[in-house]
Amino acid sequence: MPELTAHTLVVTAHAGDFVWRAGGAIALAASRGERVTIACLTFGERGESASEWRAGRTLEEIKASRRAEAESAAGVLGAEVRFFDAGDYPLKVTDELTHELVGLYREVQPTVVLTHTLEDPYNGDHPAAARMALDARVLAGAIGYPAEGEVVGAPPVFYFEPHQPEQSGFAPEVLLDITEVWDTKRKAMECLPAQKHLWEYYTDLGRRRGVQLRRNAGPNLGFASNTYAEAFMRPYPQVTDRLA
Amino acid sequence: MPELTAHTLVVTAHAGDFVWRAGGAIALAASRGERVTIACLTFGERGESASEWRAGRTLEEIKASRRAEAESAAGVLGAEVRFFDAGDYPLKVTDELTHELVGLYREVQPTVVLTHTLEDPYNGDHPAAARMALDARVLAGAIGYPAEGEVVGAPPVFYFEPHQPEQSGFAPEVLLDITEVWDTKRKAMECLPAQKHLWEYYTDLGRRRGVQLRRNAGPNLGFASNTYAEAFMRPYPQVTDRLA
Amino acid sequence: MPELTAHTLVVTAHAGDFVWRAGGAIALAASRGERVTIACLTFGERGESASEWRAGRTLEEIKASRRAEAESAAGVLGAEVRFFDAGDYPLKVTDELTHELVGLYREVQPTVVLTHTLEDPYNGDHPAAARMALDARVLAGAIGYPAEGEVVGAPPVFYFEPHQPEQSGFAPEVLLDITEVWDTKRKAMECLPAQKHLWEYYTDLGRRRGVQLRRNAGPNLGFASNTYAEAFMRPYPQVTDRLA
Amino acid sequence: MPELTAHTLVVTAHAGDFVWRAGGAIALAASRGERVTIACLTFGERGESASEWRAGRTLEEIKASRRAEAESAAGVLGAEVRFFDAGDYPLKVTDELTHELVGLYREVQPTVVLTHTLEDPYNGDHPAAARMALDARVLAGAIGYPAEGEVVGAPPVFYFEPHQPEQSGFAPEVLLDITEVWDTKRKAMECLPAQKHLWEYYTDLGRRRGVQLRRNAGPNLGFASNTYAEAFMRPYPQVTDRLA
Amino acid sequence: MPELTAHTLVVTAHAGDFVWRAGGAIALAASRGERVTIACLTFGERGESASEWRAGRTLEEIKASRRAEAESAAGVLGAEVRFFDAGDYPLKVTDELTHELVGLYREVQPTVVLTHTLEDPYNGDHPAAARMALDARVLAGAIGYPAEGEVVGAPPVFYFEPHQPEQSGFAPEVLLDITEVWDTKRKAMECLPAQKHLWEYYTDLGRRRGVQLRRNAGPNLGFASNTYAEAFMRPYPQVTDRLA
Amino acid sequence: MPELTAHTLVVTAHAGDFVWRAGGAIALAASRGERVTIACLTFGERGESASEWRAGRTLEEIKASRRAEAESAAGVLGAEVRFFDAGDYPLKVTDELTHELVGLYREVQPTVVLTHTLEDPYNGDHPAAARMALDARVLAGAIGYPAEGEVVGAPPVFYFEPHQPEQSGFAPEVLLDITEVWDTKRKAMECLPAQKHLWEYYTDLGRRRGVQLRRNAGPNLGFASNTYAEAFMRPYPQVTDRLA
Repeated sequence: MPELTAHTLVVTAHAGDFVWRAGGAIALAASRGERVTIACLTFGERGESASEWRAGRTLEEIKASRRAEAESAAGVLGAEVRFFDAGDYPLKVTDELTHELVGLYREVQPTVVLTHTLEDPYNGDHPAAARMALDARVLAGAIGYPAEGEVVGAPPVFYFEPHQPEQSGFAPEVLLDITEVWDTKRKAMECLPAQKHLWEYYTDLGRRRGVQLRRNAGPNLGFASNTYAEAFMRPYPQVTDRLA
Repeated sequence: MPELTAHTLVVTAHAGDFVWRAGGAIALAASRGERVTIACLTFGERGESASEWRAGRTLEEIKASRRAEAESAAGVLGAEVRFFDAGDYPLKVTDELTHELVGLYREVQPTVVLTHTLEDPYNGDHPAAARMALDARVLAGAIGYPAEGEVVGAPPVFYFEPHQPEQSGFAPEVLLDITEVWDTKRKAMECLPAQKHLWEYYTDLGRRRGVQLRRNAGPNLGFASNTYAEAFMRPYPQVTDRLA
Repeated sequence: MPELTAHTLVVTAHAGDFVWRAGGAIALAASRGERVTIACLTFGERGESASEWRAGRTLEEIKASRRAEAESAAGVLGAEVRFFDAGDYPLKVTDELTHELVGLYREVQPTVVLTHTLEDPYNGDHPAAARMALDARVLAGAIGYPAEGEVVGAPPVFYFEPHQPEQSGFAPEVLLDITEVWDTKRKAMECLPAQKHLWEYYTDLGRRRGVQLRRNAGPNLGFASNTYAEAFMRPYPQVTDRLA
Repeated sequence: MPELTAHTLVVTAHAGDFVWRAGGAIALAASRGERVTIACLTFGERGESASEWRAGRTLEEIKASRRAEAESAAGVLGAEVRFFDAGDYPLKVTDELTHELVGLYREVQPTVVLTHTLEDPYNGDHPAAARMALDARVLAGAIGYPAEGEVVGAPPVFYFEPHQPEQSGFAPEVLLDITEVWDTKRKAMECLPAQKHLWEYYTDLGRRRGVQLRRNAGPNLGFASNTYAEAFMRPYPQVTDRLA
Repeated sequence: MPELTAHTLVVTAHAGDFVWRAGGAIALAASRGERVTIACLTFGERGESASEWRAGRTLEEIKASRRAEAESAAGVLGAEVRFFDAGDYPLKVTDELTHELVGLYREVQPTVVLTHTLEDPYNGDHPAAARMALDARVLAGAIGYPAEGEVVGAPPVFYFEPHQPEQSGFAPEVLLDITEVWDTKRKAMECLPAQKHLWEYYTDLGRRRGVQLRRNAGPNLGFASNTYAEAFMRPYPQVTDRLA
Repeated sequence: MPELTAHTLVVTAHAGDFVWRAGGAIALAASRGERVTIACLTFGERGESASEWRAGRTLEEIKASRRAEAESAAGVLGAEVRFFDAGDYPLKVTDELTHELVGLYREVQPTVVLTHTLEDPYNGDHPAAARMALDARVLAGAIGYPAEGEVVGAPPVFYFEPHQPEQSGFAPEVLLDITEVWDTKRKAMECLPAQKHLWEYYTDLGRRRGVQLRRNAGPNLGFASNTYAEAFMRPYPQVTDRLA
C-alpha cells in the first residue's frame, strides 16, 4: 500500500476557532511541508460577532469580514480554508452538511483529523461540528455509502482545547510542542483584530501548556524554558510501535 | 544535556506479571538494543502458586521455582530482573520498600516506566505495587530526598493491562504493535509451565488487541492481518512534537 | 449597570413538574417579593395522565384539567405560568420551540433559571425540556440571534431533582432550606388531586433533604429539627465573593 | 445558639501552598475582620526547595528559611500560621498527626475549611494533607473522641486549585472574586523569592479565573473587566436559603 | 394478574448484530421454550457489506443476501426476525421508526429487552437503534400514547456487548452462562459466511467471558472449565427477592 | 462438588449498621432457613453514641449497651453476631484485623457477603470496614495464605446503602423486595432506642425503595402497592443462567 500524503483536516464551527485552538498544530504540519485543510462550517456571524452587530453591520457584511479574517489567518499558517456557510447560533446537525463533509473526507483523504470536543455547555455549535466531523469520518470509510471519491481509512482524531476546558470534560492527553512555530501562531491571531482581547489570553494559555509540557516531558527531552504548547484529547487509542 | 540511554523500568507485584502483561513491550525495547530492568516485588509465592501449595511444596521451594521461571523468561525477553522478596498476599505499601525503589530509579535512570493499574478488585497486590512505583518516581526526582545516586527526570508511565480490565477501570489508550517480537513473547510465556492454561489465553488477548490496533491504525500504517498488540494506559499526558 | 429585578424562570416538560421539584424554591422567591415565571412546555396530557385516559376522558378534556391544576398550584406558590402546548410523550426538541423560549428569556430577563436534568432514563421529555432551556439561554444572549427584546446575561442554572435521582446522575450540590414555605408547597401539591399518592412521597423527600441539609449545615446555622429542603445541581460554577 | 465567630482554617502540606492556592480567600476573609489560621504540616524542605539543596544548604537552614517566608506571607495576608514539622516527601498519613489536627479544630472552631484535593498525581503530600484534614474534621465532631476542647460542628470544606488541575480531577465549582485583595495576594507571593517564576504564573491564573468568573457571573453582577479570581471545589453540598 | 408469557425482544441496528452479540441469550431463551422476536432495523447493507460492494453487487442484491443470512441464523437460534428496512449508514432516529417499534412492543408484550449500548464511537447506527428501543419502551407503556394494542409494563433492559467494549463505556455487569447452547450459537454464526473472520473472534470472546464467569461465580456454582458466556449491562436496577 | 450451605456474611463497622442497612436482607435469608453471621468490627462506642457520652456514661458502659442492643436486634432478625472490638473513630485498617476476618471467612464459608461502600465522606470507618472485608475475601481464597480452615470460593459481594448515598457514589443496582419481612426489620430497629429518630427515617427509605422497585419490576412481577425494599450495589459482575 503506497503511503498516503500527510494531510491534516480541521473541522470547526466558526471562522476563528482554528486559530485559537489549533493554530500551532496547523503551522507545525505546514512547516513540515504537509497539507492542511480547514473546514469552517459557519462564519460565526451571529454568535461570535457581537461588536459588529452592535456597530450596526449587516449579516452579509459580517460574514464577509469573518471570511476575510479567516482566509488571512489560514494564509499565515500555511493552510487552505473551505467555508460551508451553514449558519451559526445554532449550527444544526443535518444529513446534508454531514454528507458534504463525507465528500471532503473522500477528496482530501486526511491522515489526521482535528475538531471540537463533543461537550461544551457554553456553545452548542462546537459539539454540533464535532458530531458531524465524527459521523462523516465513519461514513466516508464505508464503501457502501454513496458519495464521490475513494473510501478513507480511519485517521486518528484529536479534540482541541475548548475555551472552558474544565466545564467541557477536557483534560490534556497530548501536549504538542509548538515553540518553533509560536511566532506564526501569534501572527495568525493578530489577523483577528475584533477579538484582540483574546491575543493575550491565548498567549498565556500557550505558555501555561508549555510549562505543563516541560513538567511531563521526562528526563530526555531537554525543552527550553520558553516553551509553548497546545493540548489535545484522543477519542480513539493511540497506535504505535514504541512506548515513549 | 546529553541524551540519556533508553532504559525501561518495569515494576511488578509477582514474578510472572511482566511476562503476560508487558512481555511484548520488553522484547521490543530489547530488540532495539535498549536496556530493560524488571523489579519483581514478590515471587507470587502465596497468591499465585496454588498448584504448588496443593502439591505440598514448602514456601522456600515455591519461591525458588518462581524465581527460576522469572529469570528464564526475562532472559528470553532480553531483560534483567531484580527480586525484592517483599512478601505477597498481601503485598504491603511500606516506606522501606518505596525507599528501595527510589534507589533503583536513581541507579537505572529510567526513560520509560511500566507498572500495574492503581485499581484491581481481584488482586490488591497489583495496586500496592503501582502505588509504590509511582511514589518512588516522584521521590527519586526530588534533590532533597536522601538516597544515593543522581535525581531522575520524570519518565513517562504506562499501566499495562490487568487480568480483568473492565472491572479495573482499564481502557486501552495506547496499542503497541508487538507483531515482530510475538514469537519471543510466546517463548517467554512457555517458561511458566505451571500456568500453561494462560498461554492460550494471552495469545488470544494479543491477537484481539492486534485486531483492535488495525481498526485504529488509520489510513497509512498498513498493518498485516496477523498482528499482535499489547494495550496500555497513560496516567500522564503524552508529550510530542507531532500529532499522529 | 442598573441591577436587574430578580426574576426566576422555571422551564419544565409537564404541567405538574414545577410543583413536586421546585415548589419550595418558587414559593421562597415569591415570598421575597420576586417574580417567578413557569414555562410548561406541555400539559403532560399523554404520559402523566394515566387515570384520566383510563376513565375515558378526551385529549382536550385532559389538557384542560391539567392546565387548571397547574394554574391553581402556580397561584398558591405566587408564580405566573405560561403553557406552550408542544405535545408530550414524546416532547420533541425543535428549532421552533427553542425559538419561542428565546423570546421568553428576552422578555422576562431571568436572573435565575431552573430546569430538569439532561439525563433521565425514565422520561425522555425531561431531558428534552432541559436541552431547549439551555440552548435558548445561550441563544438569547447572542446579539446576532434574530429575536425580539434585549439580549440576556447568562443567569445561573439549577437542575431540580428528578423522580429517580440515582439513575439520572443526580447528586445534591445545593440544599435549599424551604422550611418557612413548606406549608405553601404542601398546599400547591394538594392542587393536584389526581396524583394524591405523590403528596406523601414528596413530603418524605422534603423531610429527608431537610435532614441532609442539617447534616451539612456547619456549625453556625442552627436549623431547627423540623427542616424541609429541596436539592439542586449546578451545571455552571457558582460565582461568589465569600466562601460559605 | 450563639453565632460562632467566623474563622477559616487552612490545612496545607507545604509552607508555600497557602499563598499560591488560597492567598486571595485568606486575604478576603481577613479584610472582613475574620480570623484565619493556617496549618502547615511541613516546611516543604525536601520536595519544594530544590534550589536551596543545590546551593548546599542544610536541612535546618532550609526549614528556617521556608518558615520565615511563610510567616512573612501570612502576615501580609492577615493570618496566623502554625507549623507541624511532620516531614515532607513523603508526608505520611499518621494517627498522631491526625490527632494533632483534631486538637486544632477543637481549639479554633473553624466555620470554613480549605485544603488540597484528594487526588494529585504529581505530589502525594497534597492528598495526604487533605486526607488528614478531612478525617480530623469528622473526629473533632464526635463527642466520644478523646481530645481537649469542645466538639466542632461540620464546617463546609473547599478544595483549592492544584498545580495541575486537569490531571487531579479538579474542575472549578466555585469562583471567588478576589479582585479587591489582589494586590495583597501579589505582595504575599513576593514574600517567596525562591519561587519567583511562579509569581507570573499565578498572576496569569488569577486573571484567567477572573475571566471565567465574569463569563459565569450572570446578568446582574457587573464585574469590572480587570477581575481576579480563585477556583474551588466543594466535597459536600452547599447549604443556602437562596438560589443565586 | 396473570403471568405474561416470557418473550424476549431484541432490537438491533443491522442484520448480523443479534448473532454475534446475543446469539447465546436468544438460544438459551428458546431452549426453555420461550419466544424471541428480533427487530432488525436495517440490513446492514451499506456499512457492513464491504466485500459485496467491492464485488459489484447491487443494493437490492445485498439486502436480499443479508436478509437470507439473518433468517437462517434466527432459525438456527429458534427466534423470529422482523425487518424494518430503515436504511443504514446512517440509521436515523425518527419519530416514524420509533412509532413502529411502539407497535411491536405492544404486539409482543416483551418481558425482557436486549439492545445496543447508547455509546459506540465506531458505529453510530448502534446508539441510534438503542435510543429508539429505549424511547419506544417508555412510550409503549403510556396509555395516552396513540398506538394499537395493550400498554406494556416496563421490562428489564440489557445492553449486549459492542465490538469495542472499552471504547464504548461497556463493562460486564451480568455474565450469562451459554455453555449449553454454545454449539447452537456457533452454528448461527456459520450462517454468516461473509464475515467468516468473526467466527473465531467471537468464539474467543465467548471463551474469555466464560473464564471471567468462572472467576466470579462464587463458591457454589461449579461451572465446568469449558464454559462460554455473554456479557451484558443493565441500564435499570435489578429487581429480585434474593441476593445471589 | 457438593453444594455449600447458604451462609450470608455481613461485615460492618459499628454495632447498629446491619439493622438500618441490611436488616431486610438478613431477615429474608433467615426466613429461608439460611445462616447469617454478622461481624461488627466495633461497637460504635465513640462515633455513634453521642447521647450516651453527653449523659456521662463510661466507655465500657457504652460498649456494653451497644453490644446488648446489637445482640437483641440480631436475635430478632435470626442472625448470629460476632464482635471484634477494634475501636471506632477511627476504625483503622490493620493486618491483624484483616487476618481475623480471613479466619472468619474460612470458618463460615460464606456464599454471599454484604458490606459498606468503599466511599463515604461522612464516616471513614465504613470504607475501612469495607476495605478489610474485601481484602480478607481475596486472601481467604488463596491456598498459600497461612490461616486455619479451608480456602473459600469467591462469594458475590453486595454493598448496602450508606446514609448519604449520593455523596458516597451509591446508586441502586439491585432492589431487594423485603416486604414479607418488613415487620421483622421494624422490630429489629426498635431494639435500638437511642436512635429512635432513625426508625421513621429508615421506614421512609424502605417505602421509597419499594416504590422504586415497583417502577423497575417489569410487566410480570405484580408487586403489591405496599412494598418495602433495600438497595445494593455489586462491585463484581452478576453470574446467571437467565436474563431477568
